[in-house]
Amino acid sequence: MEGFNLELSDQPESLEQILVDCRDTLKYGVRTGHPRFFNQLSTGLDIIGLAGEWLTSTANTNMFTYEIAPVFVLMEQLTLKKMREMIGWPGGEGDGLFSPGGAISNMYSVMIARYKYFPEVKAKGMSAAPRLVLFTSEYSHYSIKKAGAALGFGTENVILLSTDERGRVIPADLEAKIIDAKQKGYVPLFVNATAGSTVYGAFDPIGEIADICEKYNLWLHVDGAWGGGLLMSRKHRHKLSGIERANSVTWNPHKMMGVPLQCSAILVREKGILAGCNSMCAGYLFQPDKQYDITYDTGDKAIQCGRHVDIFKFWLMWKAKGTIGFEQHIDRCLELSQYLYNKIKNREGYEMVFDGVPQHTNVCFWYIPPSLRGMPDGEERREKLHKVAPKIKAMMMESGTTMVGYQPQGNKVNFFRMVISNPAATQSDIDFLIDEIERLGHDL
Amino acid sequence: MEGFNLELSDQPESLEQILVDCRDTLKYGVRTGHPRFFNQLSTGLDIIGLAGEWLTSTANTNMFTYEIAPVFVLMEQLTLKKMREMIGWPGGEGDGLFSPGGAISNMYSVMIARYKYFPEVKAKGMSAAPRLVLFTSEYSHYSIKKAGAALGFGTENVILLSTDERGRVIPADLEAKIIDAKQKGYVPLFVNATAGSTVYGAFDPIGEIADICEKYNLWLHVDGAWGGGLLMSRKHRHKLSGIERANSVTWNPHKMMGVPLQCSAILVREKGILAGCNSMCAGYLFQPDKQYDITYDTGDKAIQCGRHVDIFKFWLMWKAKGTIGFEQHIDRCLELSQYLYNKIKNREGYEMVFDGVPQHTNVCFWYIPPSLRGMPDGEERREKLHKVAPKIKAMMMESGTTMVGYQPQGNKVNFFRMVISNPAATQSDIDFLIDEIERLGHDL
Repeated sequence: MEGFNLELSDQPESLEQILVDCRDTLKYGVRTGHPRFFNQLSTGLDIIGLAGEWLTSTANTNMFTYEIAPVFVLMEQLTLKKMREMIGWPGGEGDGLFSPGGAISNMYSVMIARYKYFPEVKAKGMSAAPRLVLFTSEYSHYSIKKAGAALGFGTENVILLSTDERGRVIPADLEAKIIDAKQKGYVPLFVNATAGSTVYGAFDPIGEIADICEKYNLWLHVDGAWGGGLLMSRKHRHKLSGIERANSVTWNPHKMMGVPLQCSAILVREKGILAGCNSMCAGYLFQPDKQYDITYDTGDKAIQCGRHVDIFKFWLMWKAKGTIGFEQHIDRCLELSQYLYNKIKNREGYEMVFDGVPQHTNVCFWYIPPSLRGMPDGEERREKLHKVAPKIKAMMMESGTTMVGYQPQGNKVNFFRMVISNPAATQSDIDFLIDEIERLGHDL
Repeated sequence: MEGFNLELSDQPESLEQILVDCRDTLKYGVRTGHPRFFNQLSTGLDIIGLAGEWLTSTANTNMFTYEIAPVFVLMEQLTLKKMREMIGWPGGEGDGLFSPGGAISNMYSVMIARYKYFPEVKAKGMSAAPRLVLFTSEYSHYSIKKAGAALGFGTENVILLSTDERGRVIPADLEAKIIDAKQKGYVPLFVNATAGSTVYGAFDPIGEIADICEKYNLWLHVDGAWGGGLLMSRKHRHKLSGIERANSVTWNPHKMMGVPLQCSAILVREKGILAGCNSMCAGYLFQPDKQYDITYDTGDKAIQCGRHVDIFKFWLMWKAKGTIGFEQHIDRCLELSQYLYNKIKNREGYEMVFDGVPQHTNVCFWYIPPSLRGMPDGEERREKLHKVAPKIKAMMMESGTTMVGYQPQGNKVNFFRMVISNPAATQSDIDFLIDEIERLGHDL
């Protein structure tokens, strides 16, 4: 905050000062589009997507009614249908919306599932339903738990499923926990299967989970916020096999597909249920006597009223790249992560967090500085190793050369999680990262 | 959809075609920035705000952590503090977030109120609480009811308050309904006071409502999505007097203050409660061993994970205009609506929906075509009058000259609702609107 006057005052600033402020904002910001920024699932800066976002801000309109966003509403409809076709729902039928991020999309899925099985909750509240439980992986995104808290289920009724060594839900554990919940008198409602988990990039076995959901008549949601993009790739889409059996899907083009933030879709197999769940029929906004077919008005399907136009940049990128362009982008990022994996799996000073080729671009590893290499496994080594990644990252940020995420998970101490979603990244950027980790971590 | 190929295909389009698509998108869109676009509460196109949005998309980052949005996080903190100061909370203390629109901001307020009084609901769900009820005006925004449905209260537990002839909540009715609910064994939790209702632009008497909330120990939320901007005006801020007694406030700079969509704040008087309500402490994102003070990370306060950067355009506009610039903008729009009111209140062929000078820029009126002027009041006239506004609007849209909203409300048949939030609008645009209504409606 030194040297950058953020304070707001009564009097206007000069235009010159405004330009200085803009420059400073970019100067002190983080270059998320740089090919050495690996810190987040959303990286890169697609120039067509950016042009799309600029046009969107210039149009400055709102998705709630067809009358003020006719083109964008049609684009959204058509693009969602195309996405549903890629999921494999017959004829691309169903419904959907772009929402402000994967967490809200996941929240929608829980709301819709509740409405499907207990529609009376909409008017009467949760007290009209028995004790409902939701199931999700212990390593799924925390938004399922947040939805549980927000929507009145309670986090204790979000039951976490055990995973195998690769971070994938164990179907037998799901079934055992469903049976257990039923024995306690609770009512299982909803299962979330993650397609591309945040840390490991794991794909839960959707087909096996779908079998169990069918058997017990549960709503199956697939959180493909991170992994949904792989549906675009003929080579990798088998990782989501079974997704066509889901009742709803979250898919964030702003992650693996490089669309500028924000761009997240909630897709639903059953038509009409989204509006059934959320509509309040506000007469002042959605007048039934308009001169056009008001089923084009999307506002009453949403939990939002105004809704940002997130579709155009994505539609324009799709036009400009073709499905084939997204496929190349995705295949290329997965190849790069394989390159990284091959490079470090047997390299001195590295330990992989789990064995085998990663399913997504997530490569999880510890860097072991020379001082720890001879040390026997135990509490002391764990404690020291836990501090290595944060220290290296702090130095990376100070030198401003690259950025990569780390975190602990379960009983595993802090490890690096590399992810690649920027098609501008090359092998030399990967080489640089490894050199940089070794340079900064060598003397720890 | 004729002549504009929206379809997405496998192969990329040429760059020339992409440019044609961009041009067509703008061509078939609606000019929401035009000074004769009066259809929505958000209108206009501020050039500094637009520049801010363009820079934001170029930065393409995410508000959830300080480490990837250091400047934007600080700007948000500082701007929210400034807004809280304008509300009148001592020292600008408290908390807040920018959220994807007023409906979500209002949803936050209900969640926080529930957490304040029944924190156990977060873990145990709504079954841990008694039957909770929420109160809001019959003419408040439908998002309060939507929040009731989504969060598990049930719409039946959202109790609607009667209003006076100007659309303002009658405090005595609130108190009577609180007492009634308590007698039934329900637990009153939350009262929403609207500052600037969607249709009438009415300001509920916040001070009197605050007295009642204090007496019965209820959470007071002020939905100032539309009217919050008037806090910027020394002349008009008295309309929100009492807002400093609210526990939370929704305020959308993307409405009355002309900030490009989306820009909505939820502001909370009590510090820490937003994080208490929503945090899930996801270790992989919000690592406690970062090299900076992680209280700057905002992600765990939100129901979103990724969060769009909505602050920069607003901050930049505030810098460029000063508080005084927003004040002028607002005063000017209110003067213009007074001009419209004065022009039509005694004009032949017009009937005002309610008497007296409007509190906000909303001017609500019927246009009575000559064929209906002699007709006695009754069902036939009502039915005919109900169809006038939709017909005129359809013709306006076909000729593409101007756009203004209409709706029925309560027992009142369709009437026009004029709103002015675009500082580029002038008296001649108002004159044009009236001429156009008369030209199109004369022979109905």
